[in-house]
Amino acid sequence: MDFFFYPSSVALFGSFKEGAIAHEILRNIVEGNFEGRIIPVNPKGGTVEVAGRTFEVRVRLDEPVDTAIIAVPARIVPALIDEIGPLVKGAVVISAGFSEVGNEELERELVEKAKKHGVRIIGPNCAGIFGVHGRFFGSFEVRVKPGGLALISQSGAFGGAALAMGNDEGIGFSAFVSYGNAADLNESDFLEYFADDPNTRAIALYIEGVKDGRRFMRALRYASSKKPVIILKAGKSASGAKAAASHTGSLAGSYEIYRAAFKQAGAIEVGEMEELFDAAKAFEMYSKAGKRVAVITNSGGPGVLATDKLEKLGLEMAKMSEETVAELRSFLPPQCSVKNPIDLIADADYERYKRTIETVCRDENVDSLLVICVPPIFIPSEEIAKAIIEADCDKPVIVNFMAGELVRDGVEVLEKGGIKNFSTPERAARALAWLSLRW
Amino acid sequence: MDFFFYPSSVALFGSFKEGAIAHEILRNIVEGNFEGRIIPVNPKGGTVEVAGRTFEVRVRLDEPVDTAIIAVPARIVPALIDEIGPLVKGAVVISAGFSEVGNEELERELVEKAKKHGVRIIGPNCAGIFGVHGRFFGSFEVRVKPGGLALISQSGAFGGAALAMGNDEGIGFSAFVSYGNAADLNESDFLEYFADDPNTRAIALYIEGVKDGRRFMRALRYASSKKPVIILKAGKSASGAKAAASHTGSLAGSYEIYRAAFKQAGAIEVGEMEELFDAAKAFEMYSKAGKRVAVITNSGGPGVLATDKLEKLGLEMAKMSEETVAELRSFLPPQCSVKNPIDLIADADYERYKRTIETVCRDENVDSLLVICVPPIFIPSEEIAKAIIEADCDKPVIVNFMAGELVRDGVEVLEKGGIKNFSTPERAARALAWLSLRW
Repeated sequence: MDFFFYPSSVALFGSFKEGAIAHEILRNIVEGNFEGRIIPVNPKGGTVEVAGRTFEVRVRLDEPVDTAIIAVPARIVPALIDEIGPLVKGAVVISAGFSEVGNEELERELVEKAKKHGVRIIGPNCAGIFGVHGRFFGSFEVRVKPGGLALISQSGAFGGAALAMGNDEGIGFSAFVSYGNAADLNESDFLEYFADDPNTRAIALYIEGVKDGRRFMRALRYASSKKPVIILKAGKSASGAKAAASHTGSLAGSYEIYRAAFKQAGAIEVGEMEELFDAAKAFEMYSKAGKRVAVITNSGGPGVLATDKLEKLGLEMAKMSEETVAELRSFLPPQCSVKNPIDLIADADYERYKRTIETVCRDENVDSLLVICVPPIFIPSEEIAKAIIEADCDKPVIVNFMAGELVRDGVEVLEKGGIKNFSTPERAARALAWLSLRW
Repeated sequence: MDFFFYPSSVALFGSFKEGAIAHEILRNIVEGNFEGRIIPVNPKGGTVEVAGRTFEVRVRLDEPVDTAIIAVPARIVPALIDEIGPLVKGAVVISAGFSEVGNEELERELVEKAKKHGVRIIGPNCAGIFGVHGRFFGSFEVRVKPGGLALISQSGAFGGAALAMGNDEGIGFSAFVSYGNAADLNESDFLEYFADDPNTRAIALYIEGVKDGRRFMRALRYASSKKPVIILKAGKSASGAKAAASHTGSLAGSYEIYRAAFKQAGAIEVGEMEELFDAAKAFEMYSKAGKRVAVITNSGGPGVLATDKLEKLGLEMAKMSEETVAELRSFLPPQCSVKNPIDLIADADYERYKRTIETVCRDENVDSLLVICVPPIFIPSEEIAKAIIEADCDKPVIVNFMAGELVRDGVEVLEKGGIKNFSTPERAARALAWLSLRW
């Protein structure tokens, strides 16, 4: 499927009027600095200008391309596929109006024409795809930063919202695929593909239901053996399952069966949208972490909140060795607590954070670190951020800089240093819990 | 305690060098447009300039004021209280170095001097207080917008972080008090005070432990009978309780006892920091909501997620009357789902949202509404925000505009209209669950 996510050429079909879907996708592809050939196609011809570049709109596709993106009225899609079939490897069908509104026959026809030419289909009724490392933004959704997360979403709207919120959360993406009605390619195909994609460190999957349970289990087990697969299942409750059925037409089935299957396959199921972000952030940074956590903080209260949540989630407060405690005691002010959670108190600076992290990190009773910083009055949070980045520590370090606007600069420094921030002590603790599931 | 939260005059004691704590508090008070008298005091005298105003620093306090804020070295605090006792009603002692570091004797002395003069003490070892509607920002913490939440925090750092994060969440505050060692006034006093404060619609309390359980129960029951009291208890786990003991010196005691007590008193216990925000936001808007929820969305997936969470939290998907369904059917496009969750599909505009909200709101089988908007491509989210604000509906409406940057403008319109946004469907569902506890 590299022709979808790392294409060297793409043809777009639809209206190129300002604001039309094909126009918006064209703009995204151009503004995203796609380096391959871009061919807009519409029987009316003409030209279209986007982002300072002018494209001739061809009246028909007349040369081979890797991928077609199709946003024309549903009823003409099968004929279009038949026409361009010999020239394209894959087609992303954005157009809606197929099985999701009862037009099963039209969808069957689409699949049939695609099969005839050996064209693979994503969609129909989908929001498109991103191959971020191929600089290919083949969707109208907001562009994202390159990184390690591949997002597979049955719901286009959920996917689009998750991309935008992922930007806010500092998540980097390798790919995005909204697969809509899954007339041809489905979640299992994408799981297998991203399992082997070298730019993908973790896979996030939003599903309401799957059609082929055996195939899904096989794909999920394979992908989970290669990298973390984070799943958000919608349609868990009775009413939710009914709503999902009317939304994607998929039988949600008994949630208990899904849950057991996820667990058996080694996937990581999260309970809600925000947890999907937290797990994705954690796994973009680290592949796993042990259960024995050392908490380092400059403020007692948040340290207690982190401790509560860690224990609730089944993690352990690491019991540090006597040597570690003695060493901490040797350089920390007497008011500091050297028990876990380690309280560096409010005037903790660069040096105090850095040396504490390094000392604790060397202790073999410690698997991972949770470092908290509440904005100190006299020390810029950037200093603490630098201490965390520059500390010599080869174990997972999960960071919670608290207080929104007051730590904005520190969080920016962290992100530039490759460390993602978790906004509350509990979200940071939860991140470690997800990581421990792969230990 | 009005002299603390609505003072007409304040004296500050400490160093007024740039960056010193007393200087920072002075700046906050001046920049916060406090309209009463402000008297900086330091034996060295001189002048201090803040925010374009010049203050003479008096060598001693020589006129009566409502409140003193004290940030001088701990060892001289008792003598200072003795000196100014005849002139002040209350004193907020920011200074640290009392019982929290083992100096019980010094704290006893402080209390004794205060009692001698009938002066009430907040602190010592605290971050100060805000009386937001009195424009009195008597703390170095970040200033906040006026609103209905009184935040009482045993931990100063937690309180400070919560104020800053509250700003980001769109929470409005009536007051803030960090009470530190609670040598005199404690959580129970503040609960009782804010229960009767007309500007306070809801109270949020962060505690690690209380010293007088009977008194606390009485205060909590009283406050909960007047308005929602949201509690975040830290030190719930074994290690957390130990950490809390070393942090605030308070015996956290068995969490089970606390939990039962909260419930019995009618308080609303939240599990973590973010939930405190969500509950606070909900109760700043509404005093309660029934369990039968109608979900209105422009996107299937998020509607399913909301439905799942509502049912998991014990709420019910409202069963709308046949009349309501028929009316919805009469004006909604045929692709829309008129079952709950009601899916207005992606091109839902102002009119479709407004009319649906009004129709559903009239149904007596519906207690409350959860309205979701994923940013539509062709319709600005501000339009949807306006529809929600302008819809004629007298039932609680909880809103989830998803997708961070893409709905920023819509969220701003909502906030100006008095409606706070919840960033995920699940957080919105949780807000309704808190509201239903007061039904």
